[in-house]
Amino acid sequence: MLQINSVNSQLKSALQLAIDSKTKPLGALGALEAVALQIGLIQNTLKPQLNKPMMLVFAGDHGIVEEGVSSFPQAVTAQMVMNFLTGGAAINVFARQNGFGLLVVDSGVNHTFDPHANLIDAKIGFGTRNFLHEPAMTLHQCEQAIKRGVELAAHSISTGSNVFGFGEMGIGNTSSASCLMSVLCNLPIEECVGRGTGLNDNGLTKKIDILRQAIAHNRSNTDDPMKTLMTFGGFETAMMVGAMLGAAQKQAVLLIDGFIATSALLVAAKMQPNILQYCIFSHCSDESGHKSMLEHLQVKPLLHLNLRLGEGTGAALAYPLVQAAVNFLNEMASFESAGVSEKL
Amino acid sequence: MLQINSVNSQLKSALQLAIDSKTKPLGALGALEAVALQIGLIQNTLKPQLNKPMMLVFAGDHGIVEEGVSSFPQAVTAQMVMNFLTGGAAINVFARQNGFGLLVVDSGVNHTFDPHANLIDAKIGFGTRNFLHEPAMTLHQCEQAIKRGVELAAHSISTGSNVFGFGEMGIGNTSSASCLMSVLCNLPIEECVGRGTGLNDNGLTKKIDILRQAIAHNRSNTDDPMKTLMTFGGFETAMMVGAMLGAAQKQAVLLIDGFIATSALLVAAKMQPNILQYCIFSHCSDESGHKSMLEHLQVKPLLHLNLRLGEGTGAALAYPLVQAAVNFLNEMASFESAGVSEKL
Repeated sequence: MLQINSVNSQLKSALQLAIDSKTKPLGALGALEAVALQIGLIQNTLKPQLNKPMMLVFAGDHGIVEEGVSSFPQAVTAQMVMNFLTGGAAINVFARQNGFGLLVVDSGVNHTFDPHANLIDAKIGFGTRNFLHEPAMTLHQCEQAIKRGVELAAHSISTGSNVFGFGEMGIGNTSSASCLMSVLCNLPIEECVGRGTGLNDNGLTKKIDILRQAIAHNRSNTDDPMKTLMTFGGFETAMMVGAMLGAAQKQAVLLIDGFIATSALLVAAKMQPNILQYCIFSHCSDESGHKSMLEHLQVKPLLHLNLRLGEGTGAALAYPLVQAAVNFLNEMASFESAGVSEKL
Repeated sequence: MLQINSVNSQLKSALQLAIDSKTKPLGALGALEAVALQIGLIQNTLKPQLNKPMMLVFAGDHGIVEEGVSSFPQAVTAQMVMNFLTGGAAINVFARQNGFGLLVVDSGVNHTFDPHANLIDAKIGFGTRNFLHEPAMTLHQCEQAIKRGVELAAHSISTGSNVFGFGEMGIGNTSSASCLMSVLCNLPIEECVGRGTGLNDNGLTKKIDILRQAIAHNRSNTDDPMKTLMTFGGFETAMMVGAMLGAAQKQAVLLIDGFIATSALLVAAKMQPNILQYCIFSHCSDESGHKSMLEHLQVKPLLHLNLRLGEGTGAALAYPLVQAAVNFLNEMASFESAGVSEKL
């Protein structure tokens, strides 16, 4: 099993001193100061660098949509993959703006795509099974998905990326994420379910009811994170778990997006708790449940914009703040170098 | 008196339709959707553009510092201006990163600077008077400062800028801003005073006491915004009021920074309430009082990062989100154009 090491904290006091010596009141850059410190620790340097930011967008379909848990038809997963490839989705816009490379990964969409330069065929199957009745995937499929995710991260790292966003597309994947959350955070399902892409009150009640049944039916498969992922996860979620693990193992910075991406991280963190040291939480989603997930992890996100789109959009939008943290550490003058008087 | 018109709202429903037709669940881009709509209205177009973002950083000194209300010496104002000119301050780093032009304006620093390409000499005086005893400036000085601010904005607009950040530097200017807030928001002074650059508890108590006396002493000068500004303002604040008014009059987008910049806007909005339609509130500062200012204006800021640095840093940091709002409106595909199925 892949091991993620704790960050080396030998530079912690030197980094804090560098931050505190900058020409600003102590602590005046707020949350950015914590990010600068964290990235210095991850890279074990006083001069961290963010190189070739990479957005990996994993797509997959979900058998559970048979139960009417989403307000969009399953075909939208494949249609949105096409939209990603032609550059018209929100994640394309924000990735372009903020300098991300973007790869779309077919982890398990219920559609056969023509080859495309930005599309990686890593298909595990044509959508998961309906986890109301049986585990969403086999253990072998789950392990394969994780392995492919690790490889994808490793490949991007080998080409120079050291900071990653993880996005997803999959009609039905808020249902999957809600079940992962309920099991892994040990919270009642109704606290973990939201409106997804826009369910009304009746749809929400039905979704909660279906997912409660699904968890009850699969209770024997909830005693370890791999079995939980196999039972409720999507192919895109499992592959994202692998990519997160693979990126953190190689000391990359991980930008965690919203509800689905954080559900993948819940799984990864159960497997390898040290992964959290490599994570920057980009935003708190408007999807009910994400706030509780972040509280469960005892982390504070950078943005609060009521986003609920997924695709990695929150990670892409938060990235300029992460760059700003690294830039102030590298580029600001110190009181001494600028000849500025210190506090009285 | 300069007049600021209400934005033309004829395109409101067409803009909302364009936003709602993008390939995303309805409302899924949260706060960015409101920004996109606002900028479309300001520019009266379905295809808004942000051009040559300009950061104007106004610097000035304050007579009130004689009373020991700041934890840094007055000399730091001039020293930080030099730091701005050599590119080592936080605002330099963030302005460079996010593509802003940056001009430093000597509105009234207690120092004579050598000429510099990025420094505008608009000095009204060598610091204001101590408003514990008398108004900080004369009515003529206040009017001159506003007039110069209007001219500075107009000049940047004539060279192609249509989006502005407004920053400031001035030891003592949180004291000035607290008094402006107390008078203009009709709030007790203790609710308007914070630790500024880092006062301890004793320093904070003393600051509140001094400012309470100052307001009591000058109570006869608080019945209109111009007299309030003249009495408690800084030269940098008054010039910023002018620049905000001048920019809004010409339909620019105004990025409002933290406690000091918002205090300038309080003055401007009392003079010309329509100015608020042109303002994007970049962040909620960690300086006590800023949250109440924003609530008084009934506005929601984009960022919550516990910043308390001023200089325009919050505005520079929020700008990529403002760009993202304009970019999604211009660049995202619609359900129809991308062939994506709509909600069931």
